[in-house]
This record gives sequence, C-alpha cells and structure tokens, in this order.
Amino acid sequence: MSLAMYAGSFDPVTNGHMDIIRRAAALFERLIVAVAINPEKMPLFTIDERAEMVKKACADLKNVEIRRMPKGLLVEFAASVGAAVIVRGLRAVSDFDYELQLASMNRNLCPQMETVFFMTGPEHYFLSSSIVKQIARLGGGISGFVPPHVEKQLGERFGRNASAQERGNPK
Amino acid sequence: MSLAMYAGSFDPVTNGHMDIIRRAAALFERLIVAVAINPEKMPLFTIDERAEMVKKACADLKNVEIRRMPKGLLVEFAASVGAAVIVRGLRAVSDFDYELQLASMNRNLCPQMETVFFMTGPEHYFLSSSIVKQIARLGGGISGFVPPHVEKQLGERFGRNASAQERGNPK
Amino acid sequence: MSLAMYAGSFDPVTNGHMDIIRRAAALFERLIVAVAINPEKMPLFTIDERAEMVKKACADLKNVEIRRMPKGLLVEFAASVGAAVIVRGLRAVSDFDYELQLASMNRNLCPQMETVFFMTGPEHYFLSSSIVKQIARLGGGISGFVPPHVEKQLGERFGRNASAQERGNPK
Amino acid sequence: MSLAMYAGSFDPVTNGHMDIIRRAAALFERLIVAVAINPEKMPLFTIDERAEMVKKACADLKNVEIRRMPKGLLVEFAASVGAAVIVRGLRAVSDFDYELQLASMNRNLCPQMETVFFMTGPEHYFLSSSIVKQIARLGGGISGFVPPHVEKQLGERFGRNASAQERGNPK
Amino acid sequence: MSLAMYAGSFDPVTNGHMDIIRRAAALFERLIVAVAINPEKMPLFTIDERAEMVKKACADLKNVEIRRMPKGLLVEFAASVGAAVIVRGLRAVSDFDYELQLASMNRNLCPQMETVFFMTGPEHYFLSSSIVKQIARLGGGISGFVPPHVEKQLGERFGRNASAQERGNPK
Amino acid sequence: MSLAMYAGSFDPVTNGHMDIIRRAAALFERLIVAVAINPEKMPLFTIDERAEMVKKACADLKNVEIRRMPKGLLVEFAASVGAAVIVRGLRAVSDFDYELQLASMNRNLCPQMETVFFMTGPEHYFLSSSIVKQIARLGGGISGFVPPHVEKQLGERFGRNASAQERGNPK
Repeated sequence: MSLAMYAGSFDPVTNGHMDIIRRAAALFERLIVAVAINPEKMPLFTIDERAEMVKKACADLKNVEIRRMPKGLLVEFAASVGAAVIVRGLRAVSDFDYELQLASMNRNLCPQMETVFFMTGPEHYFLSSSIVKQIARLGGGISGFVPPHVEKQLGERFGRNASAQERGNPK
Repeated sequence: MSLAMYAGSFDPVTNGHMDIIRRAAALFERLIVAVAINPEKMPLFTIDERAEMVKKACADLKNVEIRRMPKGLLVEFAASVGAAVIVRGLRAVSDFDYELQLASMNRNLCPQMETVFFMTGPEHYFLSSSIVKQIARLGGGISGFVPPHVEKQLGERFGRNASAQERGNPK
Repeated sequence: MSLAMYAGSFDPVTNGHMDIIRRAAALFERLIVAVAINPEKMPLFTIDERAEMVKKACADLKNVEIRRMPKGLLVEFAASVGAAVIVRGLRAVSDFDYELQLASMNRNLCPQMETVFFMTGPEHYFLSSSIVKQIARLGGGISGFVPPHVEKQLGERFGRNASAQERGNPK
Repeated sequence: MSLAMYAGSFDPVTNGHMDIIRRAAALFERLIVAVAINPEKMPLFTIDERAEMVKKACADLKNVEIRRMPKGLLVEFAASVGAAVIVRGLRAVSDFDYELQLASMNRNLCPQMETVFFMTGPEHYFLSSSIVKQIARLGGGISGFVPPHVEKQLGERFGRNASAQERGNPK
Repeated sequence: MSLAMYAGSFDPVTNGHMDIIRRAAALFERLIVAVAINPEKMPLFTIDERAEMVKKACADLKNVEIRRMPKGLLVEFAASVGAAVIVRGLRAVSDFDYELQLASMNRNLCPQMETVFFMTGPEHYFLSSSIVKQIARLGGGISGFVPPHVEKQLGERFGRNASAQERGNPK
Repeated sequence: MSLAMYAGSFDPVTNGHMDIIRRAAALFERLIVAVAINPEKMPLFTIDERAEMVKKACADLKNVEIRRMPKGLLVEFAASVGAAVIVRGLRAVSDFDYELQLASMNRNLCPQMETVFFMTGPEHYFLSSSIVKQIARLGGGISGFVPPHVEKQLGERFGRNASAQERGNPK
C-alpha cells in the first residue's frame, strides 16, 4: 500500500535530492528512485553512471531501490510497479506552476495515483544539478553540495573534458 | 508509523478540504483531522459546530478521526498523538510562501516531524472557507462548494443573522 | 452585446483606476463603473463621496456610467444590468492568485459572464488606494497619483481629521 | 471597432486554446486567429498543418478567421488588419511576468493597441501544446486534451516517426 | 555619501533582522536603524521597548545608530538625516510585489533616494516577528530565532499576560 | 571598501542595464561592469563588441570601469579585484527565484561577498536584451530601449544578416 516513487534525471544526484530521498524513505514503507532519460537534454553522465551514483549514495537506505525508468510516462511506470504515490520536491515558486500542472496532468491520466510534495530544506534551496555542474565546470568547489563520490566523478569529468570543450570559446 | 494529521479551522469545511482529507486518508493508515482555534480570526461557527460538520462529512471514512486541537503548537500536538507527518493542501502560489515558511519553522521546532503537501485539484482551486462564507452571506448558491449539511447550516446562519448583522451598513 | 462592468470600492479612485476605465471604455461600447460597499473594510469616504469622485473623474467619458452596487454578488449585479463582461485590472503577481480564484468562482456561479483582465501600465504599477491614503495621511504629495479633485478631498479629509485621529499615538 | 486577434504557434491547437477562442469569439464581433512561425522552436507540424488544424477546430465559429502571421511583429500585424485588441490566455503565475512584459512592450510599440487577458479555465490549467506532445510521444492517451482530428494527427505523426526519432537514444 | 537607513517596526527584532543589519553595516559607512510606529497594527512592545531591544542587539556594531522614526514618510525621514540609500530585506516572493511597489513609490516621491535589497539568508527564511510571537504565545521555544535578551522579554510578556489574554477563548 | 561589480552578457546593453549601472555608480565609490561569456548561449555580438558598446554607453560615468570577465566563477572574479559587493537588477518575480538561488550559492561559495539588488524602474520593466533583439530582428523600432549607438549596431547586424539568416524559413 505504501510504495512511493521519486523520479528525476539525477545528472548528477545532489544533497538536495538526497534530502528528499531520505525523508520519503522514512515516511513510506518502500521507495523506488527512478532514474529517467530526459530526451530533451543532453546529459553529462550516461543513465548507467547516473543510476550508479544514486545507488551508491543510497547504500545505507534499506527500503530504497534504484530503477532505470523505461521509455514512457512516469505515471504509467509508477502504476506498473504498484506505487501508490509519486514524490516530488518543491524548491521555489518557479517550480510550483510546473509541478501543479504536472500533478494535474498525472491525476488526469491516472486518477488513483497520488502525488505528494516535500519542501526542500532551506539549506538545499539553492542546489540544482545544473548549478552544481556549472560550478564544477568553472572549477569551483562543490563539496557540501553533492555526495563525495559524485564530487569526485564531476572532477574527473571536467578534468578530462575541459580542454576539448572550452577550446572553441574566444579568450 | 503512518499516522498523519491535517489541521485547519474549517470555518466551515469545504469540498476542497474534503478532497485533501479523502486523498490523505487513502494514502496513510490513519488520519487525524485537527480542528483548530484561530485566535486571530473571529469564526462564524464555534469550534464544536465546526468539528461536528467535519465529523459528519467524514462519516464514511473509517480511518479518519476528528479532534479539537488544544491550545499550543500544531507540531507539538501532532507529536503528542504520535503522528509522523503533517498534511497540507497547496492551492496557489500565494499559499506557497507561507507554507514554505511554516514547514521550515515546524522542521526547526520538531525535526523528526515531516510535512507533505497535496496540490488541490483544479476543480477546487477557487474554493476557500472565506469565499464560501462571502457568497453565502450575499445570498449566492453554494451547493457544489460544500457538503449538503454545511450548505444547510450556512443558510440557517445567514438567514437568522442577516438582518441584525447588516443593519449598521449605510444603504 | 458589448456592455462591460468594472467594480471596486474606489476609496478613492486613483489614476491607476482611471487608466483601466479609459482603456475599457475605448474597447467596449458601454462601461458601467460599479462602486461597491466593502463590508470588511471601513472606508475613508462614504459610498456617495466615492461615487461622486469617480463620476467627476469620468465626466469626459461619454459611454461610462457610474452606479452604486447593491448588496449582493458582483456577477449577479453585472448579469442584472445586461453586462457581457467583467473588467479587472492586474497589477502584480500577488493580485494574480486572488483574481484567478475570483474569476473561476464567478464563472462557476454564472457561466455565461466573461471576465477579462487589463494589465496596469507600469507607470501606475505602484498605485493603490491604500498606498495613496497612507501617503496623504502622512502629509506626502499625491498629485500625479489621483485626479486633482480627489487630491483636494484627501487633503481636506486628513487636514480636518488629523489632529483627532493621531492624538492617541505615542510621540 | 471590435476586431480582436489571438496569436500563437498552435503546435498543435489544444482544448485550452479552443476555450480562449470560443470565449473571445463570444465577446468580440470578429476574431482573427493568427498562426505564427516561432523562429526559435522547431515545430512538430508545419505552419500549413497547424493552420489547417485550427481552421477545422473553429469550423462552427462563424466570426472566427484563421490567418498565417507574416514575418514581423504581432502588434504590427494586428494593426495592419484593423484589430483593436490582442487577446491572450493566462494560465499560471509563470505566464504572468512574461505576459506583463510583452503587453508593456506592445503598448510601447503601438499605444493604441489594447491587450486583454482571459484566465484559462481550471479544467485546462495543465494543458499546453508541449505537454500534449510529450504525452503523445510517450504513447499516453490525449483524448480530452485536443480536438479529435488533432489527436488523430498526433497519433499519425508519432506512429510514423517514432522509430526513426527514438533510434538514437540509449536504451 | 554612504549613509544607509533600515526601517521596520521590530516587534520584536529577530535574528533575520540582525542578519540584514550586520550585512548592511559591513557594506555602508554608517547605518541608521529606524524603529517605526505602525499605525495599523497594535504592537506587542512599545516603541521604546522595541528601540531598546534593537539597541542592545546592535551594541557591538560601531557604525549603527538606532533612531525612533518620527511621524511621516520613510523617504522623508531618510532624506532629512542625509541617507543615500534605504535598505530592505527580501525573504519571499510574497514580499517581492509589495517591495517593488514600495520602492517604485519611494522613487517617485524622492527620485534621488536609492533602495537596495538584501536577500535574507535561507537559514532565516522562515523567520518573522509575527511567527516568533505566535510561537512564544503558544509556549514554543524561540532560542535561535531572536537574540537572548529578546527571548527573555518575550517570555516575560507572555508569562505575565497569558492568563488575562486567553481567558476569553473557549476551551 | 566600496567597490561594486555588475556582471552580465550585455548582448547588447539596454537602457534597463544603464539604469542599474547609473544608480549603482551613484551609490558605490567604484563600479566594475564585467562583460561575461555565457557558454550556453550563442551571442549576437562578440565579447569585444559587447564590451565596446557598454564602454561607449558609460563614457560619462567616471567611476565605472568595463572589464571582460575571465573564465571562472563570478564571485571569484569579484573577490580577485577586491569588490565588496555584487550588484544585480530585479525585474520580475520570475527573476526572483533564480536570483535568490544564485545569491545563496554565491554566499555559500564566498561568505564575505555581499549581493545587493536594485529594482528595475517600471519604465524598463519590459526590457531585456533578448526582447530587444527580437524586435530589431523583425524590423521594429527600438530607439528608447537601447543607447543610440547600440540601436545603430543592431540595425547593421540585422540589415547585413537578415537575408542569409531568414532564407531557410518557409514563407
């Protein structure tokens, strides 16, 4: 009855995501974290790398399971695994409209699937995968924003790629 | 483990409140609906009348219990009855800021108490106790906005009081 | 077919209101400006004074008529005079939620009555009756914010009442 | 005097657009629906396909005319056909800022052109062309979100193209 | 040239206010904290008590001066003491509209007076004088939200007054 | 002590930017305007062109210096030149969330660096580099939105490039 799903592209997982995951895992009997392909954005990490990073970050959470989301609608995947509820994090007013539209749409597509929202803690308010990538790309420190193994992988990614990637920019 | 609390002044309970109550009751094992005294607003109905109206509206929900909230903080009452989570409804962006502040404050006061939000269904988006009272006061129809017994009690209240209440207004 | 209604308490009418009135009067064949009793706020000017100030400000607008709104719902009054549309001004995001709720509610109460919104011009963005009264009460200049005859009446009101009203405040 | 214009890329037209079109057509004497080229987004349907879909959806609306918008500014096209007013739909707070900026800019470019806003009905709140395309792309049901002939064309488009389009995505 | 003013009713001063005061005092040569009478709200503490609490909290800030704001407009008081800039804290979107209106109005009244905004730190996001009073009134702990001497005075205030104040409430 | 930095991509600089620059230059002893490379957007003008346009627009402001921002974080560049404060303009609620996140992140990365916000004047509310480019691209008039030399350069840019750029669009 109390299986929840939390989905995202987690490119990469941040301490803000981990805050929601821990809190949802404490409230519901089981939590499936679904790592999604976002067909509109080119990810920094492959879906396998992203899922692996989430799995490592959740190693101590016994009732959390990591799944790669198949192609298709989130509500359909959630229903197919027997989830009763989709968990979302709310950070800011600009999230609000989109989330309200998504929740309304999902309810329309699948009336028995509930959506609940956790407010992101103020200490993670400014965190997003894209802002973390931006800082890492520019050489800023990101410890405290992501789990240690993610910090390491971001460092490797930008260390390896930086020269190639930045070459085209005028100096 | 999965006891939730939903609190409000319910002056009176609307179909928007009932939407949240039904959805929360479907998600959690037990739900306590706490009817609160709001020391800053003069209610239309006494706390006993309000609690009775909620109780009647929830008669078919077996895992919902109605309680009058004692004086004190909501988080403390929720903790004292063993609730794991406080349920809130989100209707509009103007709710958002207040709710985020409240959730942050509650987390600060009682870190182990979780708060989750349900988005109000679009069909109840425009509903609030105060807008319902305003319409009823002005003689407009409110069936569809509140349960039938609440509609009846609002009619009686404004039927009985209207003459006295409006006498002072310049015409 | 193209009779519009614009309602408010106009306590007092500002240049921001006049901007909406002029633009609505240019768009629709006739415009009724309905001066309302707001039972929840104690007005500075009586409804007769307020209606008179609006009338004077609209003297050059041939297709605008000023009416005192009777007790009851705005949509009902609008329907009773044959209006096809209710005109509202939108100034700020904080207006937005309330206006969306009101428009939804009105559509629910009276499906054939349309509501349209005009965005307040940026030059009137900061104007509201209450901010104008606040400035006038504290002796600030308000020419440019209200029509000249309203400025004069505000001056008289606060000139006459200031000593009595402020006596109780600690200095 | 009462010619209105409603513009968009309509890629494809949704029931939310149709709600605004019907309501604007009921309020104004004539309504021109202008189908625009959006130079920044690659559309799913060509401008001819989009205009045709809108035309079919508006077949029963006698005072509505469909036009392809020429290259240039919306206010200039509206002025060139003699429109007195531009109609816009408002769905959410995140629309609000953009719409206020656009309306201000248009007023600046063409002071005599009015812009009025209709609030989208709550039942269409979650609808947008892009969310409909996303659901259709992932194989979800969209009846109830778009007119039947649009649903059919979306099905054909994604049926025909799905294999080619998705081939590149890692599985 | 670099004299700033920060005004409020400070009923009572919170750690959120102190965050803004410290940051503004670090940025500008001198900072005047103006303690205002709010004619629309009945304060919990007299203006003398409020000014005294702010003064004690700012004892270690050498370039900060506490002043009671005389009756009149804030911009006029700021100009009269030679301030070049008014400092405001921004906490939430719901502050934003009001603050934008206020800043626009002040610029209109006094074009040479600048207004700058500091974003409240996320750790103080949920803090406001009224939420602190509400918690203290209900017996909750407020250490960490206000300076120690303010906590003590709030305790005394509600200890002394609670019995009288709450007597009228139904139990 | 009172060196401020204002950064942006200025593609191109608008009168809205100039409003912030003039006001910040009046408040702080020195102002560095940092022209940034935005690696995610393809600019219309090269960084040299953009810096030159800003420099010309600021010719009469003696305490303003134009700098090209090196690759790296804004806070690091600001700290490296000894700035005490980063200046940002706030135009609309949709800016607010992003700016709050950015300011929080910057404070986290560099606690001693302050960020202050100026509210854009209502007369520039609707201005942005992208809306100006859009109008210029479509042949609309932009005098009054940008400094004269920028207007000229935009005209040249779109005059020269229009034929090539638009050729691919269906007519």
